[in-house]
Formats: sequence, C-alpha cells, structure tokens
Amino acid sequence: MAIDRVNTYLDAHRGDFVEQLKALIRIPSVSAQPAHNDDTRRAAEFIRDDLQAMGLQAELIATEGHPIVFAANAPRPGLPTVLIYGHYDVQPPEPLEPWVSPPFEPTERDGNLYARGATDDKGQMFTHLKAAEAWLKGVGELPLNVKFLIEGEEEVGGANLERFVAANRAKLACDYAVISDTSQFAPGMPAITYGLKGLAYFELVVQGARTDLHSGTFGGAVANPCNALATILASLKGADGKIRIPGFYDPVKPLEDWERAEFAKLPFSEAEFQASVGAPSLEGEAGYTTLERKWARPTCDVNGIYGGYQGPGPKTVLPAKAGAKLSFRLVPDQDPQTVAQQFRAHVQSVCPPGVTCEVIVHHGAPAVLVGVDSPGVRAAVRAIEAGFGKAPVFIREGGSIPVVGLLKEQLGVDTLLLGWGQNDDNLHGPNEKFSLADFHRGTKASAHLFAELARADRQVGESEPVGP
Amino acid sequence: MAIDRVNTYLDAHRGDFVEQLKALIRIPSVSAQPAHNDDTRRAAEFIRDDLQAMGLQAELIATEGHPIVFAANAPRPGLPTVLIYGHYDVQPPEPLEPWVSPPFEPTERDGNLYARGATDDKGQMFTHLKAAEAWLKGVGELPLNVKFLIEGEEEVGGANLERFVAANRAKLACDYAVISDTSQFAPGMPAITYGLKGLAYFELVVQGARTDLHSGTFGGAVANPCNALATILASLKGADGKIRIPGFYDPVKPLEDWERAEFAKLPFSEAEFQASVGAPSLEGEAGYTTLERKWARPTCDVNGIYGGYQGPGPKTVLPAKAGAKLSFRLVPDQDPQTVAQQFRAHVQSVCPPGVTCEVIVHHGAPAVLVGVDSPGVRAAVRAIEAGFGKAPVFIREGGSIPVVGLLKEQLGVDTLLLGWGQNDDNLHGPNEKFSLADFHRGTKASAHLFAELARADRQVGESEPVGP
Repeated sequence: MAIDRVNTYLDAHRGDFVEQLKALIRIPSVSAQPAHNDDTRRAAEFIRDDLQAMGLQAELIATEGHPIVFAANAPRPGLPTVLIYGHYDVQPPEPLEPWVSPPFEPTERDGNLYARGATDDKGQMFTHLKAAEAWLKGVGELPLNVKFLIEGEEEVGGANLERFVAANRAKLACDYAVISDTSQFAPGMPAITYGLKGLAYFELVVQGARTDLHSGTFGGAVANPCNALATILASLKGADGKIRIPGFYDPVKPLEDWERAEFAKLPFSEAEFQASVGAPSLEGEAGYTTLERKWARPTCDVNGIYGGYQGPGPKTVLPAKAGAKLSFRLVPDQDPQTVAQQFRAHVQSVCPPGVTCEVIVHHGAPAVLVGVDSPGVRAAVRAIEAGFGKAPVFIREGGSIPVVGLLKEQLGVDTLLLGWGQNDDNLHGPNEKFSLADFHRGTKASAHLFAELARADRQVGESEPVGP
Repeated sequence: MAIDRVNTYLDAHRGDFVEQLKALIRIPSVSAQPAHNDDTRRAAEFIRDDLQAMGLQAELIATEGHPIVFAANAPRPGLPTVLIYGHYDVQPPEPLEPWVSPPFEPTERDGNLYARGATDDKGQMFTHLKAAEAWLKGVGELPLNVKFLIEGEEEVGGANLERFVAANRAKLACDYAVISDTSQFAPGMPAITYGLKGLAYFELVVQGARTDLHSGTFGGAVANPCNALATILASLKGADGKIRIPGFYDPVKPLEDWERAEFAKLPFSEAEFQASVGAPSLEGEAGYTTLERKWARPTCDVNGIYGGYQGPGPKTVLPAKAGAKLSFRLVPDQDPQTVAQQFRAHVQSVCPPGVTCEVIVHHGAPAVLVGVDSPGVRAAVRAIEAGFGKAPVFIREGGSIPVVGLLKEQLGVDTLLLGWGQNDDNLHGPNEKFSLADFHRGTKASAHLFAELARADRQVGESEPVGP
C-alpha cells in the first residue's frame, strides 16, 4: 500500500529530516528586527528550495515586507485540496542571557531540540514539508492536491499576508486548511485545538518634559512619565484580575456549563502547572479555573516596559519618556477595533496631568472557534491516531493565530489546528525547544492526514485505501 | 597687588583653560559603567598631573573602586586652609540619540560648551584648579593653604570617599570647604546654596515565573511582573502628589513662613520654567509652589523602568521579571535608613500575589542646611561679587551632595556651595552644557575667594590686601 511506502520513507529519513530542520533553524529569521532582514529572506529561500527539490512548483512572492513562500503540486482534478499554512519567521531571541545553548545553534538535549523557532513554527511547519516529501519521493505522487503557504511576518502581525490572500483567492482555493502552530494538551496527549483567542496589541507612550532632567533639581515639580505610566497600567486591572476598561466585557459570553465540565475533566494539575512555570502562585481572574483563564477568558498583559535609565548602578534622572507594549487576548465576539477604541478612551481618561499619552496600535485579530464535527476533523483524528498512537483530545488555546480568521473569511475554510508542541516548549521565551519524538510523530501524522483527507472527501462506502 | 597679577594671568589664559577643560571632558569617565573603568582612571590622572604641573603636591589614592585625587600646597603655618571638593566622574550619557553633538566631544555653540560633564562636575570643579594655578603661576604662591579632594564615585554613591575621609581627618583638616556642583539661580543671578535635599535610591525587582512565557498560552493564569510593578509604583504617590508610604512625612517640618516669603520674592516665573522644560503643565505636591516643591519638599521619582520586550515591533511575551530604579529626595530630619525600612515595608504590603518583590538599596544621604551668617559665607559673597559683578542670592536645591554631610561629620566644617551652572544645563540628561562665560567668571570668583577667605580669617581691623 502507498501508506506503507510513505512510512518506510519516513523511517529511513528521520536523521536527514532533523539535520535539515537544524539548517533551517540556524538562519536567524527574526522578522521584527530589520537587522535580520537578509536572514529572514534566506529562511524563505530555504523553504522554497526544499519544496522545489521534492517536486512541487514553489515560488517566493515579494511583499512590502518579508516574502511569502507558495508551493503546490501540478493540480490533479477530482482530488480534494489541502492548504498548509506555516511561518518561517521567529520571535526575537532576547533576553539572551538565560539561553543554555545559543538561540540559533540548535542543540539536542534529552530528546529535545533547543533553539529559537524549534517549535514556533519552523519545527512544526517542517513536519508537513517532510510528509509531502515522503509521498512524492516514496510513492511518486501526493494522494490529494497540496498547497503550501508559508509566510514570514506571523510574529510581527504584518498586513502583507492578508493582502496576498485577499488578492489570490483562486490560487489559494482549498477544501481544508491545516496549521501546526499550537501544542498538545500534555506529553503523550495529542490535541486538536478548536478555539483560539484574539489579540489586540498596543504600545503606550507617555511623554513628560522635552528632555531627560536631573531628578533632584526638577523632581517633584515636573511630572514623571515613568510614574504616570505605572498609574495608567495599574488602572487596567483590579485586584480581582478583572479588566477595568469600560465596555470591555460587554460582548463576552459566559462560559457554557458543558464547556466548563469538559475542561474540568481533562487531567490538568494546577500544582504541576505552577511548578512548571516556577511562579510563587497562580493568579488570574477571580471565579475561574486556570484552564478557563488560559483558554476562554480575555486577559491583559504588559509585554514590555521601558523608560529612563536601565544601565548598571544608579542614575538620578527624571525621564522625558516612558512606554509599554501591552496586549489584550480576546474571546469570541470581542472586536479588536472596538477594544482599541475602548483602550484609547480609557488611557485618555486616566492619563495623569503633566504628561501626554499616545496609543499606537500594533495589530489585532478576533478570536476563533471552529466546529468539531466535520469530515476534516474526523480525518485529523485518524491521522493523529496513526502518528501518535492515540486519539487526540479537544482543547482551546490562549494564543492567537490571526490567519485562521483570514482563511475563513477569504477562502471559506475552517482550519485544522494540529499542534505537535508541548506547553513547556518556551516558545517566545529563552530555551525554546521541540521534542524530536513529536517532530517525527507529527511528520507521520501529517503524511497520514493527506491520505485521510483524500479519503474523507469521498462518498460513504468508498473506504478502500488511498493512493496508487 | 597680588590679586591684579592673578586677574592678569586669568585673562591671559582663558583660551588655554577652555582647551584643557575640553581635553578633560573628552575622557569618558562614566563611573557607573565598568567598561569605562580605564577612562575613569585616566581622568583622575589628568587632574593629578594638572595639579602637579601648577606646583602642588598631588597624588592618586587607590580605593576599592575609582581612585581619589588629593593635592595640597606645602603647608604655610598661620594661614587658614580651604578644602576644595569636586568629582571627575560623570553620569552615563545614555540615551545617546537626543545629543546634538557627541557627549564626549565637547562642542561650543552659542557661548556654551556642550558635553557630558561640562558642568557636572568637570567644568565647575576645574575653575578652582585654574584659580589655584593663577595664584601659583601669576603670583608665586597661594594666599592660604589649599587642599584638593577630587573623587571619582560621586555619580554612583560609592562608599570609598567616606572611608577615605574618615581615615584621613588630619590630612584633610581645613577651616573651609568649597564645592561648585550646583547652579546659579538664573543667568546673571549667582547664588549661594544653603540647603540640599537628601537622597534614598533603590532598585525594585519583581519576579514572577521562572522564565519568560508566551503571553497567549500563559497570560491570565500566571501573574505578570510588569503589571505588578506598575501596581506597586502607582501606590507610591496619590493624585495629590503626596507620597503614600506610612510614616514617610513624620519627621518633615512644615516650611517656615519667612522661608516661603523669601522664595516667593525671587524672580521666578512658573510659566518660563514650564516652557524651559517643555512639559504640558507643572505638577507636584498639592499646596506648594514650584520652588517649594523643588527645594524644600520630599519627592519620589522613578528614574528607570524595565521589563519584557523593548525591541522594535510587538512580542507577545509574559515577562519573568521587571524592575525599576527609583529615588526619594529627602528634606532635613528625614533619615535615609528609616526611609529604606519604610519603603521595604510598603513594597511588601502592596506586592501583589503571584510575584516576589526585592528591594535593593543603592545609596542614601541625609539633607543638609548650612548657616548663612558666617565669615566664610561673607567671604564668598565678596568673591562672587568680584567674579560675577553681582551679589549672590541665597537658595536651596533639590539635588543631593552627600559629601557635604560627610565633611561636616568628619571634619566639622560647613561647606560653601558656590554653583556656577545654570538650571537648564541638562546635567544628567542629553546635551549637558556649561556657559563658557560662567566658567571664566567662576574661575575669577574662586581666585578671589582664596584671597577673601585668607582675609576673613584675620582679626577685625587687619583688612589690608592679602598676598605678597
């Protein structure tokens, strides 16, 4: 059977796949940092070349920012089409100090590959490339039509992918979309993610005097933007963890009883979770469990804060300026634009006298909930069983993947969110990692998914094996 | 007369003095930054060599940190002794971007010399060196005994000077101490500063999870140290500008009516002050004028704040750690150690759950008030009249000069605070400057001060000219 040849190819090339992934990870494609623009382009070229080498038609599509990689097989009419989305750009590696091994020198320890991008999203995305390669090289052709859409601005929320998708709906037309950029529920508990939070990301800049001043000579007479910033940020949440921006919760629906019951059934230990993050206690919105807070309640986090002197030793300066990057995670029915208006209005209402406050909107995306009862989801369940030896659980996720909403809106497809990562993979933090065992399982699951989606699309009764 | 020969020497060497000052300023003696340790030492050597070249016995005294320069003339019994204190170290130049010319490339514009250290304290301190040189080279000897104590840790509050002074009281014994590290009241309004605020400088470090986390996956379930830091900082002051740390104001005496009246008489325009700092409005403790806030009321300012991602673009991180440098300016009768205890207790009482708070004490010094009716002050009034063509006004200052308290405690002397700078000199900020006209006036005033102090020490009636 074709799938046997695919499995044989996958088993024979495990070592090659890891080496190729390492080569991709070594390219520091930090999309947020202009100094890495050439590296970011090199990562795109790497992906294009890999897709071309396996026999797909691959191209680099220029944008106003980082290029998009698009690839597809020569279309075979009558077969369903799956669109694989991924991203080759990575988060900045800073702070560098806590990294045990350099962020862009992938290093194996305890069965994991440690590096920036190991799981988010180079490692996870790469499983689908290798699955396609296994069909093309091991069998000679894919069991269905496959399109790859791999972008380079996921971590900066660039608008270029949105423009490209809107302008190329025919080129991207598909029956299914697949993204592997989430996590399993736990080690050995693969998951299908059916809900994602939305995001509204801002920068708040507070300006006082024209220039930095001596805090002795001017302190107490001129407003301090660092103090003012603290006052504004402190006003965002109450001691009960509730966000205090007027109107913020208006569209938020209460959690359904069945959903709370399902979450509660999952084998989740708050004590183990707390130990894994190493925090003194778990804190969040009053009246909700940790899983409910993580998956289904809106949140507000300061992502970065700056102002005044940050070097060694003391400096008695009254800073001219201070700022914070901060973001709200949104749940279904919250609109990022409305949140932006509410946030701006709130900031102006609490901005202390003596300083001016500016709000810069970085990016936003609404939350997503997808149906769990569909041929695609059932095919994914069987593929995950084949790859991981276990049926997936159904979970939600606090992260945001704006492209899921975009694909729904522009192409009319729900996305299968098949996460191969783990919750402690430190994506976005130091010592990001990806389990190599999960890398191989994910590759196998992806290869089976191609077969299962091809079969899922057929009429009931046509259940013979897929492929030539 | 000797003073005429001094004046002639000063007039003839104005250009030389400026070039020598520029050479000193070019040495980036940033005491807070270990990368500049060699530069800091070079600045000390420069001062020592200059003092030696004019004929004083000068030495570099090693400490556990940056060296101390000490110099004196061969003692002449029967003459009074003045100790000149200054510092050759400078504040960090960061942020660099707002500097019009490079911080360590002294540049003349509109009669000012722009550079880090131009006024604080290289330029002001250098006036006394050049005054001594004028006596030694122009007349052949000094009219009184002069000791120079020039340190390299003023900007970092190092404890080495304190140790040195305590261990060398005989060596440093003097009748008068002089420091030029303050400002005139306004251009053309030289001043004697009779009060300084104290300082209590802290760093507050807030730690949440063990490592940076993804703000989507973990946000809302794990406390955010940036948000917690904001909550703590916001608790320090009320909307009325009053510091809300229990017990903080207990030892603070109300301003005396006569002092409020004197301050009110000074030609100070709040509108011009506001325009000079470029702030949207002037803000501070309710119930006090700007001069009262600046000079005579305790204050609290965040000097720096940091945490999470500060690079370009957005990064959705839940930081593990955040911190702030902050300082309180103290008024007479407030004890820095007591303030440290009160601050620690307050931080622990408001530290939100889910994070830990650590307070690091950087340095502290009590406030100082010196008597204005003394032979030394009267001598200084006459010297300033000679140098600036105008009698000084008496002012207080919001900055702190811990050495003033140290000299009082160890040597039993009050310090004459004779500031040659201006309030808009941007000491500690970008584009620090020093008026070259004030540099020359200050040098002349210092040269006359030596004569006036020598004369002041004599009995009433012995009012003939001083010097050979």
